[in-house]
Amino acid sequence: MTTEIYTASVLQYIPVFYIIWSDDLLSASEINVAENAISEDSSLTLADKKLLKSWLDVNNPPKDSVLKSWKQLIANSGVKLVEHNTYPLTAFSEKVAKHYQGEIPFNECIKNIEVNLGIQPNHYNHLFDVQIDLDPKSAQYSAKHIGSILKGEHAQTIDQFRSTLKDPIFSWQIRRNKEDFRQHVLEQVKFLAQKGYGAMAYSEDYDGTDNMEGYAHIFENMIWADGSLAIKFGVQFGLFGGSIQKLGTKKHHNTYLANAGKASLLGCFAMTETGHGSNVRGIKTTATYNKEKDTIVIHTPGKNDNKEYIGNALHSQMASVFAQLIVNGKNEGVHAILVPLRNNAHELLPGITVEDNGYKLGLNGVDNGKIWFDQVEVPKENLLNKYGTILANGEYYSEIKNPNKRFFTMLGTLVGGRICVARAGLGGAKFALTVAIKHALKRRQFNDSVKIQEDLLMDYPSHQLRLTPLVASAYVYHFTLDKMMSLYCDESQPDKRKIETQVAGLKSIITWYAIDTIQECREACGGKGYLIENRIADLKGDVDIFTTFEGDNNVLLQLAAKGVLSDFKAEFNSAGFSTVLKLLSSQLSDKLSTINPVYSNKTDKNHLYNPKFHVHALEYRTRRLTYTLAMRIRGYIKKGIPSYQAFLKVQTHLMTLGKAYSAELAYKSFLEHTNTITDPDYKTLFEKIGTLHALYEIRKDASWYLEQGYLGGTKSKAIRQRVERLCTELRPHLNTLIDGFGIPDHLMTAPIAN
Amino acid sequence: MTTEIYTASVLQYIPVFYIIWSDDLLSASEINVAENAISEDSSLTLADKKLLKSWLDVNNPPKDSVLKSWKQLIANSGVKLVEHNTYPLTAFSEKVAKHYQGEIPFNECIKNIEVNLGIQPNHYNHLFDVQIDLDPKSAQYSAKHIGSILKGEHAQTIDQFRSTLKDPIFSWQIRRNKEDFRQHVLEQVKFLAQKGYGAMAYSEDYDGTDNMEGYAHIFENMIWADGSLAIKFGVQFGLFGGSIQKLGTKKHHNTYLANAGKASLLGCFAMTETGHGSNVRGIKTTATYNKEKDTIVIHTPGKNDNKEYIGNALHSQMASVFAQLIVNGKNEGVHAILVPLRNNAHELLPGITVEDNGYKLGLNGVDNGKIWFDQVEVPKENLLNKYGTILANGEYYSEIKNPNKRFFTMLGTLVGGRICVARAGLGGAKFALTVAIKHALKRRQFNDSVKIQEDLLMDYPSHQLRLTPLVASAYVYHFTLDKMMSLYCDESQPDKRKIETQVAGLKSIITWYAIDTIQECREACGGKGYLIENRIADLKGDVDIFTTFEGDNNVLLQLAAKGVLSDFKAEFNSAGFSTVLKLLSSQLSDKLSTINPVYSNKTDKNHLYNPKFHVHALEYRTRRLTYTLAMRIRGYIKKGIPSYQAFLKVQTHLMTLGKAYSAELAYKSFLEHTNTITDPDYKTLFEKIGTLHALYEIRKDASWYLEQGYLGGTKSKAIRQRVERLCTELRPHLNTLIDGFGIPDHLMTAPIAN
Repeated sequence: MTTEIYTASVLQYIPVFYIIWSDDLLSASEINVAENAISEDSSLTLADKKLLKSWLDVNNPPKDSVLKSWKQLIANSGVKLVEHNTYPLTAFSEKVAKHYQGEIPFNECIKNIEVNLGIQPNHYNHLFDVQIDLDPKSAQYSAKHIGSILKGEHAQTIDQFRSTLKDPIFSWQIRRNKEDFRQHVLEQVKFLAQKGYGAMAYSEDYDGTDNMEGYAHIFENMIWADGSLAIKFGVQFGLFGGSIQKLGTKKHHNTYLANAGKASLLGCFAMTETGHGSNVRGIKTTATYNKEKDTIVIHTPGKNDNKEYIGNALHSQMASVFAQLIVNGKNEGVHAILVPLRNNAHELLPGITVEDNGYKLGLNGVDNGKIWFDQVEVPKENLLNKYGTILANGEYYSEIKNPNKRFFTMLGTLVGGRICVARAGLGGAKFALTVAIKHALKRRQFNDSVKIQEDLLMDYPSHQLRLTPLVASAYVYHFTLDKMMSLYCDESQPDKRKIETQVAGLKSIITWYAIDTIQECREACGGKGYLIENRIADLKGDVDIFTTFEGDNNVLLQLAAKGVLSDFKAEFNSAGFSTVLKLLSSQLSDKLSTINPVYSNKTDKNHLYNPKFHVHALEYRTRRLTYTLAMRIRGYIKKGIPSYQAFLKVQTHLMTLGKAYSAELAYKSFLEHTNTITDPDYKTLFEKIGTLHALYEIRKDASWYLEQGYLGGTKSKAIRQRVERLCTELRPHLNTLIDGFGIPDHLMTAPIAN
Repeated sequence: MTTEIYTASVLQYIPVFYIIWSDDLLSASEINVAENAISEDSSLTLADKKLLKSWLDVNNPPKDSVLKSWKQLIANSGVKLVEHNTYPLTAFSEKVAKHYQGEIPFNECIKNIEVNLGIQPNHYNHLFDVQIDLDPKSAQYSAKHIGSILKGEHAQTIDQFRSTLKDPIFSWQIRRNKEDFRQHVLEQVKFLAQKGYGAMAYSEDYDGTDNMEGYAHIFENMIWADGSLAIKFGVQFGLFGGSIQKLGTKKHHNTYLANAGKASLLGCFAMTETGHGSNVRGIKTTATYNKEKDTIVIHTPGKNDNKEYIGNALHSQMASVFAQLIVNGKNEGVHAILVPLRNNAHELLPGITVEDNGYKLGLNGVDNGKIWFDQVEVPKENLLNKYGTILANGEYYSEIKNPNKRFFTMLGTLVGGRICVARAGLGGAKFALTVAIKHALKRRQFNDSVKIQEDLLMDYPSHQLRLTPLVASAYVYHFTLDKMMSLYCDESQPDKRKIETQVAGLKSIITWYAIDTIQECREACGGKGYLIENRIADLKGDVDIFTTFEGDNNVLLQLAAKGVLSDFKAEFNSAGFSTVLKLLSSQLSDKLSTINPVYSNKTDKNHLYNPKFHVHALEYRTRRLTYTLAMRIRGYIKKGIPSYQAFLKVQTHLMTLGKAYSAELAYKSFLEHTNTITDPDYKTLFEKIGTLHALYEIRKDASWYLEQGYLGGTKSKAIRQRVERLCTELRPHLNTLIDGFGIPDHLMTAPIAN
């Protein structure tokens, strides 16, 4: 083989061109980057420039024989690639040129190509001889800085909480016996209460700091210590304490709230019943007002009408019981009543039966149980009467006349819990990703017979593809949940219907994301991931139920979709259809413009990486699904089909819409946040993260987009390739990105991550 | 609203037509069914026929006002639907007609429409008043007969084994302490060994029955008792015993096999090392021949070169150790050597260190451990020397000269284990599906305000869609695995390379199917699914590792794909690429005809339900992926890119091909079996099951088919609708289908399933 003689200036470009053409992923905007660099390179003669530009013609790429000669030329130079150089490709090129033509200066123009095309060593390290480098890490970004972006204005609260978790009481151990485990978790909860974390979301009058947003953050961090801890904490302070705070009035606050926050009054939240999981309005427990004695009698009518899966049931002194309130023979709908369960000696009070739910798939440090009430009498004052009360004259009174609206107003106040569940799921996903990626950055597997060492797991394309998009999504959901909690806490916006509906959908997609992520991490760690010591196993078991509790995901998605259908004007959670049907017409007028074939086949990098494209695609999906859903429902109704049946017929369509809307909302929330980042380098990084998340999301639903003609086959393929490419581009920053999650060393006990 | 007066004969058709038009899923072949029925109906006058046929025009469907008048007419009749009637729609129609026009005979033609269009009560029960029916079940098929089809020629073995599991030793309990759990499982294993099940796959000389196929079936059933039991059983008899049987020679068989089969010699299979999970050829443990003493010295050179996750490590007296065999200074590659671990007092022998792997996500009744060897000396005879031996003169000798081929021949003999793992995963999926579906057939949720009772979970379209295709796949994979085991055992076909490769791919897709199914069942059971007592939780933990052990799924898929690429001529398991590259050319000549646009938009039911279409689609995908993969690899090689790098670049493509090929293989195996079913009713049922599985599979990959232009948007949507429709059509038979799995009552301990 003859090797052409190139000038030193041209020679420098050879490795770059070899890499470019070994991959076929050159779009117009990328060619543009290379062309600009060449044009601006003053070291090149006009002839050099012409030659180099001739190698950039996609319609007439360099011949295979030319590529082979380049490869030969590079190999013959004997130069080795040093991956930890700041610009490894530019440095490598410089040395290759130097080998043949003597000293030349560092070429900024080549550096620009390397940086702007996102060419990373793992694109090409097997093409060249590599100087073995045991710990190649990029120092371009600081994990600490990323961490501070994630913590935002809650940095101090979060940092303090993370230090608190240094206490030996939180040191992680395998606990197999549920009694021991529960006792230990109870002590952890009390410890945190003493430190003031229990009351955090309550007002200052009750020893709190009124900091619900900070509470959500520490809740996410808590799962890093233990899942059972987070859930028991949430039950005590968020659900039990929260029901007093949100559904009770001043007298309840004064009597109970400070004690609940200190965990000196342990309580549970008794809503779900065995016979009625997702259908809270259908619960059977009754709370009957006894006018003569001015008391309320709590009663479980049937065998399967007991309260079920009630967290803290075995440790509680009191329960916030949801029951049908019957006043003067009339059912006023579901209300919450405080019912003492045990005396000071921790003995059950008369009429109360509690049964342990026993061992579960996870969360065995939480004492879940069933509760039956047999004509249990409590004072009238125990009714949490913010939204409905029994007057002194024994009549029922509520400012909200519509019983439906009243019910959903009460439930709505508890939506903060759903955000927290999603946050905890996200925390679990972050932990599992950290373990899996730290492991993959150390673990080597198989090898190229030419090379000395086996490849890092993290350098396999399939491994990058299975983990990197999940990291990107963790960032997206982080900011999404931040925004939701901030809107939820915004008292200038009292009507929370829209947020409640949005949270319903987001809780679904984020908790599903969490369990999928933890599963992927388990498999990515192989047998090591299966050992309890590496923590992923417990996370899997603990987080699994997040898809079910605080609202079953499938049910929540349908609520979200009904919200979209009725433009968020229907009552939240409404099982009825009449309001939705009334409001349907607004969706039917939505005109979607036809997608231009040029647009549906645009595959240029600049287009695919543009958030405007992502938003357009996600919005288009929601609107199209809304329109077609509205059309279908209207069609059924017109034929005289009962509305219940009509909604059953479109059930899977509803769920698809719920997911689509939530995905759109999540990405837009993320973008909003990214736009506030001032440092341009970090902004670029976050935009890239968002792009990966968005393209991955569009890719997952490519069949729908293709069916609609929104994507052409070529564009769909290009998106798939870009997803893989983005994983490669983010590879050098993966370690920084997971360190950015900020899981402290004292909580990261998994041996494979250390 | 005026109600038109119809004749009694026409009136009978009104409910059918109302149902047909309330759904828009009428394709040409379905209209044909209705038209034929009408043509053949002698009770109709010519005018009636004309009128009825005028209502079958998709281009000019009955007006909404006409539909509403029908609905009114039906409602005014006051007739109630009785779901448990054999032909509920025909019976209903008859009664409606009778109400208006007096007695008329049962109409066979309407029955034909009802049956042939697959119209089920759950399509329409909310359209009409329903006579509440607590236990609507179809008796069309017999679970027992389905069970006998599944058991095939192994019915006696399977039935006997299922009775054996009645012994109290198998009564299921929650066991949290690993020591107790392991001890109990050990006793269960010994119990089964005494009954002869341990030696089942060995020859009669060693107390067996040479029945590997039966062994695979009982292995699937065993997981219904407990996952740990199945795995420990498999380690003792399949891996440890199997290594002696398959890799050893007569002297080993005579000395050890009968004792292994009786579990009086407990052993483990020490292959995997901490540092080398999937890369068996790269293991570091050495077995050095000492010529002077005529012994072999087993040694663990480095800290991370210990054997890892070795099942039975704490109970074993002996290990089958895989190590690099070094004879006269030359490494002859990986061989297995029998190494005693403990003496009769169960004390570790000198030089051997064992460490407990501790608690795991599941399978805590299996004693997994790490093992280190410090210059442990064993007699030369302990080398399992079927494929490589040390001669009396101290020289190494093997009939298989090529070390690669030798290695893969040894591994290949152990492929039966992979089939068994897939079988156990399938057994787990069947169990979880049985629990979830039995639960959904009892559990009611929400309600239509008009109706008295809440709907069964199983009557929600989303619930049908999440569970029914998984039931269909269980049937498909059942027969697939039957066939694989039968081929594997067929001694007339000594070259097992193709089967080994096929099993690699099938093990991946089936174990993934298993964990996805168990997860879906967990969620479908809500909080009940989370309780250990309902068994799904343990299955989740136990089956999870199946995706990793006996070959990591991602690695196995790549092996399968390389097999396809090289037309199964390359060495199985080969990590090298040269053979594959050499054989690539055969794939490049594969011409795929362009898909006719008429075909890619054909949405008629007859076409979509035709197995020929499914097979065509699955074959097309494999061939197209193979061709494009071969093209890509050739392109890279031509440019001078090293083959290792080229294969890395196509890694995700390889995995896609591996999955596609396996899916094709599974469906074809199923069809082959279906064709042997003689009873036409059951044949129809199994064809429908296969259709659902196939359309679901094509649907999952719709984006790929759309990108290729194989499917048009309309057809893709039609497939989605047909999947939902098939779930509805199978709804009445779901209970029978899961009973067909044959899980005995004594093993189905989940309270929610009883």
